[in-house]
Amino acid sequence: MEQLGAQVWVVPGGRIPFGGTAPEPEFTSFDQLCVLNTTESAADLTLCFYYEDTEPVGPYRFVVHARRIRHVRVNDLIDPEAVRLDRPYGCVLRSPVPVVVQFLRQDTRLPGTVALTGTMAHPIA
Amino acid sequence: MEQLGAQVWVVPGGRIPFGGTAPEPEFTSFDQLCVLNTTESAADLTLCFYYEDTEPVGPYRFVVHARRIRHVRVNDLIDPEAVRLDRPYGCVLRSPVPVVVQFLRQDTRLPGTVALTGTMAHPIA
Amino acid sequence: MEQLGAQVWVVPGGRIPFGGTAPEPEFTSFDQLCVLNTTESAADLTLCFYYEDTEPVGPYRFVVHARRIRHVRVNDLIDPEAVRLDRPYGCVLRSPVPVVVQFLRQDTRLPGTVALTGTMAHPIA
Amino acid sequence: MEQLGAQVWVVPGGRIPFGGTAPEPEFTSFDQLCVLNTTESAADLTLCFYYEDTEPVGPYRFVVHARRIRHVRVNDLIDPEAVRLDRPYGCVLRSPVPVVVQFLRQDTRLPGTVALTGTMAHPIA
Repeated sequence: MEQLGAQVWVVPGGRIPFGGTAPEPEFTSFDQLCVLNTTESAADLTLCFYYEDTEPVGPYRFVVHARRIRHVRVNDLIDPEAVRLDRPYGCVLRSPVPVVVQFLRQDTRLPGTVALTGTMAHPIA
Repeated sequence: MEQLGAQVWVVPGGRIPFGGTAPEPEFTSFDQLCVLNTTESAADLTLCFYYEDTEPVGPYRFVVHARRIRHVRVNDLIDPEAVRLDRPYGCVLRSPVPVVVQFLRQDTRLPGTVALTGTMAHPIA
Repeated sequence: MEQLGAQVWVVPGGRIPFGGTAPEPEFTSFDQLCVLNTTESAADLTLCFYYEDTEPVGPYRFVVHARRIRHVRVNDLIDPEAVRLDRPYGCVLRSPVPVVVQFLRQDTRLPGTVALTGTMAHPIA
Repeated sequence: MEQLGAQVWVVPGGRIPFGGTAPEPEFTSFDQLCVLNTTESAADLTLCFYYEDTEPVGPYRFVVHARRIRHVRVNDLIDPEAVRLDRPYGCVLRSPVPVVVQFLRQDTRLPGTVALTGTMAHPIA
């Protein structure tokens, strides 16, 4: 079967917005990684976070089962340590099988506003 | 003639926003797939939707005629089943001829706001 | 010298938002194509617009001089015919030299709001 | 070790929004370049800015240390000259080692609004 995606994906521009004033939980500020695994094997993903002023932190781990997606809020990653709000980061995602990864940010810091931005992550062949 | 695009495109980060408070229909919340077919043949597209907790659903089908575009709201896909609002999904689009696919979301859930985000879908060679 | 970019770029998801309520001209609704030409030759670009229900229209022409950028609002393209507001379109940009193309939309239809979205256009090798 | 990224990246669609009405500094209008350097070597980056009506300006220089990210606001680049607000630009980033580059804009010109847009920069092999 064809290979849908790549095994390494990179997002340099992470930063979970700090604070949110709209109703919870649907309007929480967040950064999100959206992963699609079309293969017949579970993908045991590892994530490594890079910062401006300290050594990389990881691996974070989560699974995307065969023929499934998973949308993970970076806010929810706590092991080996929580990703602090409002702290610039980049991350590298590695998968044992080809996946596709999209990045999304929802920013509701300013009262009465919702801002969205996103992009496909950068695939490494 | 040159081949403009690819025959398989992937969007991992779908989720039709649930609810919209601005005037209809121009401010409805939606996810949209925008397809350009520059070839001399109609493109009979098939879409397959992937979810977090159940088997993939599809094929959904629609046509993009030769030398035409089509902007399809995911909200409007109902066969074999409607894509539920507020449910995370990913999708894979397949075309018999090369096309180019862009993803767009309009989110008007919060009264008096319009948020947009989008990205080119990820092409598979 | 290295070649920075590609000679054909595709944007499937165009639609100039119809109407804008914020102060003109900085808050006009628009779709925009941003082109960077790093080469030593002027780029005589041609644009072709594709629609849902009629034959493609073009060529539109504009120049990006050597070692220059140009940000063109689609709203301002009028020859061979104006691109109508609120009409879905796709476009293909061709250049005699390698360029890089980014798409941007500013949407101010709803009073008191500004929405932005954009993506790199899709390059054809 | 694998090479994560590319050594040349291009952003054609720059323009730092002029003005911002929300609280400083977190709601300043800005354009930003987000760079991830996963290698074991510091990346001495050079940036060159291209304009519509004058020769390119550069090099601007900044460092992204080994195994680090850096998010640079274009607003803060002042040597060899400040990038003027509200002036369309494109830029080319060059690195001696592979990096990944993402572009982000925050636009708060209109009182009470926050707009975000971004995209991965365009990589040159």
